[in-house]
Amino acid sequence: MNQSYPSQLLENAVNEFAKLPGIGRKTALRLVLYLIRQDKNQVDSFAEAMIKLRNDVKYCSICRNISDDDICNICANPGRDSKTICVVENVKDVMVIENTLQYKGLYHVLGGIISPMEGIGPGDLEIDSLVKRAASENVEEIILALSATMEGDTTNFYIFRKLSGFHHLKVSIIARGVSIGDELEYTDEITLGRSIVNRTLFNDSFKSL
Amino acid sequence: MNQSYPSQLLENAVNEFAKLPGIGRKTALRLVLYLIRQDKNQVDSFAEAMIKLRNDVKYCSICRNISDDDICNICANPGRDSKTICVVENVKDVMVIENTLQYKGLYHVLGGIISPMEGIGPGDLEIDSLVKRAASENVEEIILALSATMEGDTTNFYIFRKLSGFHHLKVSIIARGVSIGDELEYTDEITLGRSIVNRTLFNDSFKSL
Repeated sequence: MNQSYPSQLLENAVNEFAKLPGIGRKTALRLVLYLIRQDKNQVDSFAEAMIKLRNDVKYCSICRNISDDDICNICANPGRDSKTICVVENVKDVMVIENTLQYKGLYHVLGGIISPMEGIGPGDLEIDSLVKRAASENVEEIILALSATMEGDTTNFYIFRKLSGFHHLKVSIIARGVSIGDELEYTDEITLGRSIVNRTLFNDSFKSL
Repeated sequence: MNQSYPSQLLENAVNEFAKLPGIGRKTALRLVLYLIRQDKNQVDSFAEAMIKLRNDVKYCSICRNISDDDICNICANPGRDSKTICVVENVKDVMVIENTLQYKGLYHVLGGIISPMEGIGPGDLEIDSLVKRAASENVEEIILALSATMEGDTTNFYIFRKLSGFHHLKVSIIARGVSIGDELEYTDEITLGRSIVNRTLFNDSFKSL
């Protein structure tokens, strides 16, 4: 649909919103028409929050998580187990794992995964900084928590090779298998096959961290 | 889910996005994490477009449509038929009708419809300005193009009463009936009943404006 807008300002605002991922022109128009009806203050604070975020947000100098300071809350927390580092693709994955309340170690955010299709190589990721951290004798375990995809596995394998020289390290990978609550009948064969190969002792499967 | 954010700036930005209608906290986080990765320029132009829109957008002094000038493109266009005014609820409806390419008259944007549930009465709408425009002998027809809902009908009736003193005016209402492409079997009974009562002559039903 070749929409004609009654106002250039309106069209500009719709164009800006429609650049965001997953926001089509119809949704963009709906959001913009909503903003027009709000207080000036509210629109200002919306715009200001975006500019501030983009200008002032920092990345933790240790784990590369998003942070307000040079070192993030997690790395700065003496209550966390600094012997364990969990490697994740991005900031969202940190939040997802934090929400499980199951993990008390530190993180390392790669900023992506190796993807030849998208032209992302190991040099584009925070792998060197991970290797530097892992070199410390203080670190005992690296947990690889990347997506169970081809790209995730490629990245896992690359990191595993990079870390193979450190004999003080245990490198582990998060369990893959049937999702809790899923019925066997509807689980795909690859997942099911892997869950049989990687079976755990019955008593171990109910242990907590 | 009580999400803990790694950064206050991030949380503020997510909060602002999540105020928009139809944007939940998960979507807001996705959009904000996207914005962080963009050029500063792009985020600035996004924020600027919203502020400019809110500060500089005008409403046409004749029809109350959104406009960059005091009088909108449609009202200012001498090629439009100024004898006909189509009454709509909001700016979006103007755009929708314009896209049909079937209407060459002018508009009048009410800015809402009468809705006791939401506390919107006739005084909150641009009804007095409509009556003023309709008083001109130059106007021949008012087309009511509101939603086919209880609120729409209430508003239609209210406006019809307000205009009943003007004997130079024809007041019409857009046709209601079976949607083009719909099967009778799946059309609701009220619509179907109304489409039988309001049947048109066969030859008339294919005429264009």
